[in-house]
Amino acid sequence: MNQPKVAILMGSDSDFGVMEAAVVILEQFGVAHEVLVSSAHRTPERTLAYAREARQQGIRVIIAGAGAAAHLAGVIASSTTLPVIGVPIDASALNGVDALYATVMMPGGVPVASMAIGKAGATNAALFAVSILAGEDPALVQALADYRETMAAKVQAKSDALQQKIALRGN
Amino acid sequence: MNQPKVAILMGSDSDFGVMEAAVVILEQFGVAHEVLVSSAHRTPERTLAYAREARQQGIRVIIAGAGAAAHLAGVIASSTTLPVIGVPIDASALNGVDALYATVMMPGGVPVASMAIGKAGATNAALFAVSILAGEDPALVQALADYRETMAAKVQAKSDALQQKIALRGN
Amino acid sequence: MNQPKVAILMGSDSDFGVMEAAVVILEQFGVAHEVLVSSAHRTPERTLAYAREARQQGIRVIIAGAGAAAHLAGVIASSTTLPVIGVPIDASALNGVDALYATVMMPGGVPVASMAIGKAGATNAALFAVSILAGEDPALVQALADYRETMAAKVQAKSDALQQKIALRGN
Amino acid sequence: MNQPKVAILMGSDSDFGVMEAAVVILEQFGVAHEVLVSSAHRTPERTLAYAREARQQGIRVIIAGAGAAAHLAGVIASSTTLPVIGVPIDASALNGVDALYATVMMPGGVPVASMAIGKAGATNAALFAVSILAGEDPALVQALADYRETMAAKVQAKSDALQQKIALRGN
Amino acid sequence: MNQPKVAILMGSDSDFGVMEAAVVILEQFGVAHEVLVSSAHRTPERTLAYAREARQQGIRVIIAGAGAAAHLAGVIASSTTLPVIGVPIDASALNGVDALYATVMMPGGVPVASMAIGKAGATNAALFAVSILAGEDPALVQALADYRETMAAKVQAKSDALQQKIALRGN
Amino acid sequence: MNQPKVAILMGSDSDFGVMEAAVVILEQFGVAHEVLVSSAHRTPERTLAYAREARQQGIRVIIAGAGAAAHLAGVIASSTTLPVIGVPIDASALNGVDALYATVMMPGGVPVASMAIGKAGATNAALFAVSILAGEDPALVQALADYRETMAAKVQAKSDALQQKIALRGN
Amino acid sequence: MNQPKVAILMGSDSDFGVMEAAVVILEQFGVAHEVLVSSAHRTPERTLAYAREARQQGIRVIIAGAGAAAHLAGVIASSTTLPVIGVPIDASALNGVDALYATVMMPGGVPVASMAIGKAGATNAALFAVSILAGEDPALVQALADYRETMAAKVQAKSDALQQKIALRGN
Amino acid sequence: MNQPKVAILMGSDSDFGVMEAAVVILEQFGVAHEVLVSSAHRTPERTLAYAREARQQGIRVIIAGAGAAAHLAGVIASSTTLPVIGVPIDASALNGVDALYATVMMPGGVPVASMAIGKAGATNAALFAVSILAGEDPALVQALADYRETMAAKVQAKSDALQQKIALRGN
Repeated sequence: MNQPKVAILMGSDSDFGVMEAAVVILEQFGVAHEVLVSSAHRTPERTLAYAREARQQGIRVIIAGAGAAAHLAGVIASSTTLPVIGVPIDASALNGVDALYATVMMPGGVPVASMAIGKAGATNAALFAVSILAGEDPALVQALADYRETMAAKVQAKSDALQQKIALRGN
Repeated sequence: MNQPKVAILMGSDSDFGVMEAAVVILEQFGVAHEVLVSSAHRTPERTLAYAREARQQGIRVIIAGAGAAAHLAGVIASSTTLPVIGVPIDASALNGVDALYATVMMPGGVPVASMAIGKAGATNAALFAVSILAGEDPALVQALADYRETMAAKVQAKSDALQQKIALRGN
Repeated sequence: MNQPKVAILMGSDSDFGVMEAAVVILEQFGVAHEVLVSSAHRTPERTLAYAREARQQGIRVIIAGAGAAAHLAGVIASSTTLPVIGVPIDASALNGVDALYATVMMPGGVPVASMAIGKAGATNAALFAVSILAGEDPALVQALADYRETMAAKVQAKSDALQQKIALRGN
Repeated sequence: MNQPKVAILMGSDSDFGVMEAAVVILEQFGVAHEVLVSSAHRTPERTLAYAREARQQGIRVIIAGAGAAAHLAGVIASSTTLPVIGVPIDASALNGVDALYATVMMPGGVPVASMAIGKAGATNAALFAVSILAGEDPALVQALADYRETMAAKVQAKSDALQQKIALRGN
Repeated sequence: MNQPKVAILMGSDSDFGVMEAAVVILEQFGVAHEVLVSSAHRTPERTLAYAREARQQGIRVIIAGAGAAAHLAGVIASSTTLPVIGVPIDASALNGVDALYATVMMPGGVPVASMAIGKAGATNAALFAVSILAGEDPALVQALADYRETMAAKVQAKSDALQQKIALRGN
Repeated sequence: MNQPKVAILMGSDSDFGVMEAAVVILEQFGVAHEVLVSSAHRTPERTLAYAREARQQGIRVIIAGAGAAAHLAGVIASSTTLPVIGVPIDASALNGVDALYATVMMPGGVPVASMAIGKAGATNAALFAVSILAGEDPALVQALADYRETMAAKVQAKSDALQQKIALRGN
Repeated sequence: MNQPKVAILMGSDSDFGVMEAAVVILEQFGVAHEVLVSSAHRTPERTLAYAREARQQGIRVIIAGAGAAAHLAGVIASSTTLPVIGVPIDASALNGVDALYATVMMPGGVPVASMAIGKAGATNAALFAVSILAGEDPALVQALADYRETMAAKVQAKSDALQQKIALRGN
Repeated sequence: MNQPKVAILMGSDSDFGVMEAAVVILEQFGVAHEVLVSSAHRTPERTLAYAREARQQGIRVIIAGAGAAAHLAGVIASSTTLPVIGVPIDASALNGVDALYATVMMPGGVPVASMAIGKAGATNAALFAVSILAGEDPALVQALADYRETMAAKVQAKSDALQQKIALRGN
């Protein structure tokens, strides 16, 4: 694979069930990426070292998924000026609200871009990373436009199918 | 001013008290920008038209601040493939939780990058926009690094001042 | 079927499990209706176009069901002066609170009538649409009164059945 | 004044500070209305009697505003087939969330159309009532369209004013 | 059975799975009671009539269990000066928080005594009713004291069992 | 004053601003009472001793008001079989939700009757205590009925006053 | 076993499924401990007596796990000056938020150290107890450091495994 | 001052208004301490370095106060095996719930002891630190017992004063 441009970090390998949705999108758009398990709490030095060196390694966007007191995205953002995207994961009794608040409520000065809790958030984190990279890459702009068009077509097709299903039931 | 690269939209001019924090950051980093009041609900056509044409107009990042059922960022994101950053604003009885949920819980396929509720979120929206633009602009990378360094120095200075204050009281 | 008077839109065909409850009520009251999948985020133009033209097409009430950052009802309401009824759907980790807040907390000027989260909300959205149409149709007034009476009779019957069940257990 | 078509009930006269926003809208649209203080808990008989007789009295829509355990709209809806619109009011330590849940989470069979908490909700309750009445009154359809247009024009004007203000500060 | 002293009302027969816990306690204490399904929204007249006449019928305490926008206890309390105990039931997407707020946040003047959400609440509603009746009945005071003693003994026994289990595992 | 029948305990004297509302009601109904500051956490022995001996002292109902992690009502209920009424007080950053949950969510076996957060809750705690005492005292039944009637009359008077105010403004 | 230094109390034996995680950690670190079921509400005297005498019995830290209106940790803390650690347990409809608030929001003067809801909290309660005991025991300091190192190594191993898994899928 | 045993860190000097309550307690108990402003996000290296070296510097307990996405306590805990106590501070629109969740919901393996939001939490953090240090210092055990006794005496005095005040008003 080429030099990765997007890094996907997660606090625990049990988060991969959610974060895989980000991998799928990056594969689909042909964006080189790497995936790591690295925890703000269990491997702090490694996490910070990764954040500090990421830009020089060629990384352009970092995606960080974590649950509960989800400090991962914020800790990474503290040590890089790269765009950091956080994905809150539902991994405690609190349905992911804890992870959402711990990800999104960053103090002024150190931004984290929070996505939705769970798989939708992981999907969108990757799409958002693509939209950032698209700033220098017209092919990605086109790919994003195509993705949107396909998505709209699917909605239309589902609408048609639903109408047929209901029409049949009317008889 | 040069061709704006960042657009700041807000749903109501009463949101400017919060969103001004984003303007201040962009001015500080010398990033050309434009500011509009445009509502997802009160001026839907205008808002969508702006979103559709923004890329061609040279805009690279859109920041959208809104309160209550804050649909603005999501509606803009529905009609552009540019990165859209949402700032939830505390503008109802619900302390901004409504705006946060309406901004951050986007369905898979149409990403919005949510910042914190209020001024910290507006500040960080602008810093995040700068970090996106920095992908193609080493000067902005340096400016971001300088910003972080200044911020760290201020924390250190405040720490020293607090220690002195406490030492005095000890006497 | 006759010219539809009520439109039921939903953001995703996966919402039909909930929104079907509205269809069932409209069928029961003999109110002509149409059902569409149309998303505020994935098919924004189509959604807005539908909203703009609905009144001229003979639609009298629009019901919109959506989950997560549920912008659908609000986006439709932005482009029609018809009554718009929103049904928040539990489709994320947040139990539908996100959808509820995104549906009900509309800013002054663009009303959306929110129902309860989920099937009870879908049922009531249709009943509420019938109560609106009943303003010009005495037969619907009578049908609503009959519906209420049947409902009350069922509660009475269930109360009797429960009392018998408990009486037996007392022996 | 003509025969009232819209009734505005509130649980306490202290709610009038919020519910006045509904009165203002109805006056603006020239819709005849009446205003009562009537409590689900303090005057239950009177409240139910009003609900039972409202349709025969010529009332077409009932708006009910209440705070805390806001039962008013639900209690009225239990005894009429007219459309009932609820306005949750922030009147306890819980910021109106209690009133919102007690208003919007109605069980299937007895619909209440909930608006946002507070003044925005009261404004929208009246606009929604107008949109219901507009079903039989083309003049109200036009009035609603005009209202929207004026609102959009104001947003545009505020946008222009904000841009000027910022341009000046740029100097 | 003797003249019932405690009435247990519930909004739907599906609530019996929870409210049965109250029946079990009253049976255990030998307190005569009756059970009804009666809804604040579906059978409002019947519910109010029951409340108005309960004291004359010999009822001394009313227990009301309901879910979602749980108005039942409040509506009953509006029409009787008997003690009314509310049991919030988890019957919507909101985990019973809606029922809790709608039950407990009663305005000043019309008290409802709220218990916990669900079965623990139903159990305690009945125990609380017994404690009210015990004011005139020393046998019930003794029965309550015995109940507490048995409960404490069970805790002690479980503690012993757990210690043994752990001791074994230590080997 | 006569032998107190109702005891009002509060965790801190700063709670008296809220709990005074209960005192006012008991004075109004002529119910003898006593008021103590006694904390579940700061004076646990004294609190438990009071609870254990209250019935023998002639106390018939205990009202306990507390904020934050409001354990007072539960701790008292653990050591008496008298009816214990809890009043959650808004005394932390959490708007009284902490006090509400800590008061109302009692485990099965040890009931606490929770009232609303704050003054409405304190008022209702006293009214509920009166309704318990009324079981043996027809004069209190009548006093409660009179209280309700006065309350209803006030609502009617306020309704009339509001209608006049609005009628005047119509001119 | 040696003289226990850590006591683990829980309000119900059904809490052991969660609290066992604390036992496992203490066994792993070789810290002598004892486990009791003792309830703030069902066995108040026993609970307080235990708290009062714990220090003299040689106990150095008390861990208390409880659900719903979780008063156990606070009640223990009221009667000892030993460090008391609370573990909120998800045991009601409220997902453990009730237990969290009832545990953590202690008033000034009587501290409880709250851990996370559920098993993570029970694990951490024991680790925290070890860190307290480590103040006088260098072997425990080393054991904690080793525990951290093992944990970090596991994260690294999982990261490697995940990367391999993804690399394979890339083919 | 002697070698500090307790360190109080806060994320911003604006947190001192809250954290001063901890300083006051430590001064009162004569426990040597030091106070720093050090941010998880703005000065990550310095914060981690402090945590890593604290034990060797003689620090025995670390107290960390922070608001919003309060990562400070967790980040410190990631790099020390000393007991870390977190104080959530109300510093955003979310009333400190964000800080509470970000502090208390730590994943298994890296404990943080959370106190209540705000000043009560800061007071209790210091008292808890004292209770830890008291493990090796009988004088501190006595000081804690004295503190409790004084506190109880104050409650008793306030209770007496309140009773007098009420007695006077009875006249």
